[in-house]
Amino acid sequence: MRTVTLGAIGAGRIGKLHAENILRMPGVQLKVVADPYIDEDWARSKGLIAARDPEVVFKDDEIEAVLIFSPSTLHADQIITAAGAGKQIFCEKPIALDPDRIREALAAVGKAGVKLQIGFNRRFDPEFRRLKQAVDAGEIGKVYLIRITARDPALPPIDYVKTSGGMFLDMTIHDFDMARYLSNSEVKEVFACGAVLVDPAIGEAGDIDTAITTLKLSNGALAVIDNSRQAVYGYDQRIEVFGSKGSIMACNRTPTQTVSTTASGVITEKPLYFFLERYQESFRAEMEEFVQALREDRDPSVSGSDGLISTLIGLAATESMERGKPVRVAA
Amino acid sequence: MRTVTLGAIGAGRIGKLHAENILRMPGVQLKVVADPYIDEDWARSKGLIAARDPEVVFKDDEIEAVLIFSPSTLHADQIITAAGAGKQIFCEKPIALDPDRIREALAAVGKAGVKLQIGFNRRFDPEFRRLKQAVDAGEIGKVYLIRITARDPALPPIDYVKTSGGMFLDMTIHDFDMARYLSNSEVKEVFACGAVLVDPAIGEAGDIDTAITTLKLSNGALAVIDNSRQAVYGYDQRIEVFGSKGSIMACNRTPTQTVSTTASGVITEKPLYFFLERYQESFRAEMEEFVQALREDRDPSVSGSDGLISTLIGLAATESMERGKPVRVAA
Amino acid sequence: MRTVTLGAIGAGRIGKLHAENILRMPGVQLKVVADPYIDEDWARSKGLIAARDPEVVFKDDEIEAVLIFSPSTLHADQIITAAGAGKQIFCEKPIALDPDRIREALAAVGKAGVKLQIGFNRRFDPEFRRLKQAVDAGEIGKVYLIRITARDPALPPIDYVKTSGGMFLDMTIHDFDMARYLSNSEVKEVFACGAVLVDPAIGEAGDIDTAITTLKLSNGALAVIDNSRQAVYGYDQRIEVFGSKGSIMACNRTPTQTVSTTASGVITEKPLYFFLERYQESFRAEMEEFVQALREDRDPSVSGSDGLISTLIGLAATESMERGKPVRVAA
Amino acid sequence: MRTVTLGAIGAGRIGKLHAENILRMPGVQLKVVADPYIDEDWARSKGLIAARDPEVVFKDDEIEAVLIFSPSTLHADQIITAAGAGKQIFCEKPIALDPDRIREALAAVGKAGVKLQIGFNRRFDPEFRRLKQAVDAGEIGKVYLIRITARDPALPPIDYVKTSGGMFLDMTIHDFDMARYLSNSEVKEVFACGAVLVDPAIGEAGDIDTAITTLKLSNGALAVIDNSRQAVYGYDQRIEVFGSKGSIMACNRTPTQTVSTTASGVITEKPLYFFLERYQESFRAEMEEFVQALREDRDPSVSGSDGLISTLIGLAATESMERGKPVRVAA
Repeated sequence: MRTVTLGAIGAGRIGKLHAENILRMPGVQLKVVADPYIDEDWARSKGLIAARDPEVVFKDDEIEAVLIFSPSTLHADQIITAAGAGKQIFCEKPIALDPDRIREALAAVGKAGVKLQIGFNRRFDPEFRRLKQAVDAGEIGKVYLIRITARDPALPPIDYVKTSGGMFLDMTIHDFDMARYLSNSEVKEVFACGAVLVDPAIGEAGDIDTAITTLKLSNGALAVIDNSRQAVYGYDQRIEVFGSKGSIMACNRTPTQTVSTTASGVITEKPLYFFLERYQESFRAEMEEFVQALREDRDPSVSGSDGLISTLIGLAATESMERGKPVRVAA
Repeated sequence: MRTVTLGAIGAGRIGKLHAENILRMPGVQLKVVADPYIDEDWARSKGLIAARDPEVVFKDDEIEAVLIFSPSTLHADQIITAAGAGKQIFCEKPIALDPDRIREALAAVGKAGVKLQIGFNRRFDPEFRRLKQAVDAGEIGKVYLIRITARDPALPPIDYVKTSGGMFLDMTIHDFDMARYLSNSEVKEVFACGAVLVDPAIGEAGDIDTAITTLKLSNGALAVIDNSRQAVYGYDQRIEVFGSKGSIMACNRTPTQTVSTTASGVITEKPLYFFLERYQESFRAEMEEFVQALREDRDPSVSGSDGLISTLIGLAATESMERGKPVRVAA
Repeated sequence: MRTVTLGAIGAGRIGKLHAENILRMPGVQLKVVADPYIDEDWARSKGLIAARDPEVVFKDDEIEAVLIFSPSTLHADQIITAAGAGKQIFCEKPIALDPDRIREALAAVGKAGVKLQIGFNRRFDPEFRRLKQAVDAGEIGKVYLIRITARDPALPPIDYVKTSGGMFLDMTIHDFDMARYLSNSEVKEVFACGAVLVDPAIGEAGDIDTAITTLKLSNGALAVIDNSRQAVYGYDQRIEVFGSKGSIMACNRTPTQTVSTTASGVITEKPLYFFLERYQESFRAEMEEFVQALREDRDPSVSGSDGLISTLIGLAATESMERGKPVRVAA
Repeated sequence: MRTVTLGAIGAGRIGKLHAENILRMPGVQLKVVADPYIDEDWARSKGLIAARDPEVVFKDDEIEAVLIFSPSTLHADQIITAAGAGKQIFCEKPIALDPDRIREALAAVGKAGVKLQIGFNRRFDPEFRRLKQAVDAGEIGKVYLIRITARDPALPPIDYVKTSGGMFLDMTIHDFDMARYLSNSEVKEVFACGAVLVDPAIGEAGDIDTAITTLKLSNGALAVIDNSRQAVYGYDQRIEVFGSKGSIMACNRTPTQTVSTTASGVITEKPLYFFLERYQESFRAEMEEFVQALREDRDPSVSGSDGLISTLIGLAATESMERGKPVRVAA
């Protein structure tokens, strides 16, 4: 098993999480972490070289692959630069909000002949993997319906909302990817219905906080996604796939499986509160997939094209809500 | 507690069920059951007068109220006749498929000043009553989203499908009523998306077997209903109401609460197989409500107007699916 | 289906419950209810003849069977009188606390050649019936272990405790019967361990409020029962049967299957609060079994001998606790 | 955070598991692993120095603590040697089967003034920790009853059974420790009841495969443990603590929380199959506790005395079963 040497750009919340996962991976060296606001104490305690300029990563010949954990607006530029430097690339979603910009980035990747994996981590979640495996093994027969519930535990900051691209590109994009992943099919048409019910400030910022989105899939099946920016009980992430032989559901994960029975009722634990806890295994697993793809010199199982398509669905959803009618997804 | 004397029209599956429930109600006398194909042995064993002609019921002065369990196409006529005879009326849904015909029946009821209760039995189901009570008590705060899953265990006969008015008027109509009941709000707009996935014969009969319907409610909340004509595991009847303080879900009922753990897995029982078992308590409770309304000389809690409005929503859903865009519900 | 005419002795809580169930049974006439403190309004509202003296029941030639719902101390005498009058007999448990007195009653029944069913209603509970059926069908293979949890929701009155015969004869007796019923086997030896943890007044009255009882069964399997006089969350009635092919568990029943998820946790409903609600179906079903046995002129499925044996196990348990060692059950 | 250097003795299944956990712990160096049958490829791939003689570990001045993962019969000797070498010690349970031998080992540890942690890993399991925390926080009030179910997925090899000390010293010993841990109380008296139901070969080897053990605790509460050597559905590890304010239960952990609903039933996953998967988090956490105790120069939270006491309870249980009566635990 050859050692793989990586460099990371971005050491915010998600960047630190990934870095700490990588440090526990045998046969992987995370050499440099670059961030203009790098927490140097943290880097030192982890034995990492801290840089402020991403060029340190791009120019390091020992570094085989670049991990892009920077703010979304920088992703496309950094993919293009990394590709130009001949680096393999892992990039958090989204590549960009503008599909033309995404296409430019993917073209640069294609031209350079490097690998690119997009951070649709939920595909690596053990719960959803079980669903995928059940679908692929024919356990539930022909797929009729997919139901996805994805609710955040708390409103994001309004400043974040303003630059997020809106709920469908920021939040539902994961669910669009999941519908494609679980159905082995493409989204043909979207009807999205949004509302501002949680906080009027979201509406003033031009976004919504509650949505129901219906998808028509190319295999004839239907999917429906319900989203909310605020579920007071925590991060609500459930999926059901229903088909000719029955249904399989992924329920929420909880800290423990204990059951308390008191005069107040029978109480089990709330869902894990946020994505860092809920999806911790998937963050590890997607990075293992990336490293494995490098070692085996094959394409990673989540492609740049997956990043583009989900964005196109998100744009169609946004347009559908604005125009009040179903919209076909651009090819 | 004064004795209430009833007469029933229709002694098919649902008519017999109601009759047997009524026979166990203290203070209620079911005097006559009229049906052109009446099972006379059954009537005799229950101590009921069997008639072939509904006129026997309409003309019996001792009978205070008429229970209409006949085929749907006869409902409106029989309501009008019963009202003309000054009888109080309980009628299974739907009143008719044509809203003008429904309005005529309601006008006759209004003119006669008699009471009319429509058989939206699910409002009396203990599971859904608990949801309603949670919403009304503010337990889940402001309602954001309602999710309804309603799947039948097996396809109906194709002949039934042809005269049923289509899935939205035959099956989803109960879910439309439930959305109104649980939200204390009206449906403004419907977007319905249907597919033929279970059996092409359904499509050839001009109907669908799978649907997702999105509702915009007048209080701003959203609702989504998923339907299927065939869930191989039984009758799947689940509802979730999600709001600012959390969510409450009604899960499926099962014959027992036992859990079997073997080399094959951890197995609990399937949902009760069909509506007769699943909703048996609600059938009893809706009849108790009707008798109680008669005794207290007040309007029953489910009105003729509830029957009309659900039909209007069903028609809007049908049109939405056909035209591929959202449709406003007629006033 | 011939009409069966019954007379009841005792119209306290359990007597009224049974009477109201019988009134809803087709083909059964409850003619007289005798109780020195009879609630005459209640009897009149139900259309029952009210008597103060049980002789009214014993002497009524139209009455085929006597239902004994009187205080336990009267059971044996009334069984003997009823048998002497040639009546069929249903009697609530226990027949008596003294096994010799039970044997006298059973001898009178045997001599008169009448039927006797003892009120071990839990054998008719749908949850436990499912366990029995799984055991009998070999679903869990050879039985290794039976675990019974039976906890009352609240302490009984101390005056009741004083004459109850103690926890093992008053409360655990149902669990002894259940262990026999589910295992199709006899109890050979008992080790009982009791404690006064809930309320010292129970100890002052010479009883315990918490117990663990281990049973050795004649087929080699083991059983364990845990009891408490006070579970603040309600009536806790769970059983697990574990064997060579797996286990099957009966969980508690709840008013509804709804799930509430709020900032406080994921909350399902507490167990049904007391035996009248929890076992309502079993009370109906045991009476149906009795009437059916009369109609078919066969022995009821719960016999006087079942009543004697459970008492002998209860006495062995009491002795085991007092002597601090296992005790063999008398033959 | 200073680096802690460790040496391990024993590289069988449990030794390798611990070694791999330690290799992922920041600030900890596992320098040498000694085992007469060491898998050298494995050691090399992990970057570990492989030795055949434990003396290599005892004599290495850089090694601060010795981890004893060797066969049980060697534990006491190795503890004494390690203590003599001034090493801190982590030792898997049991220290020895003979309490006098345990006392000798503990005396050596005491004389050397080194720390000793015994591998009662279940104390570190997140499920059971939640129970402990609930008890300590008073959530369930005064403890009345503890119910422990511990069933292995498959019979151990008969050769293992012969030298294991018997079920109570090999298997139930964990449950004895758990009863003490959860109740904050000592075991005064034991009554154990065993049977050979799974396989007669177990009986021929002088052991049992099924047991129910009742414990009287010094705080007055009762505990009951049911054990089986073979649950065909996997590793069954459940605990309930019941008290004056209610109960809290630890349920089994499963690979995922998915629910499959098909014509066969509603199916969730079986418990994790064996202790290596089920308790993986606890193995990591107990080692973190040990390292933390070294860094903070304090006693670990599981002591040598805990090892001794559980063995004394196990001996009392064995004697109780053999003599057919309750036995007091030696002081």
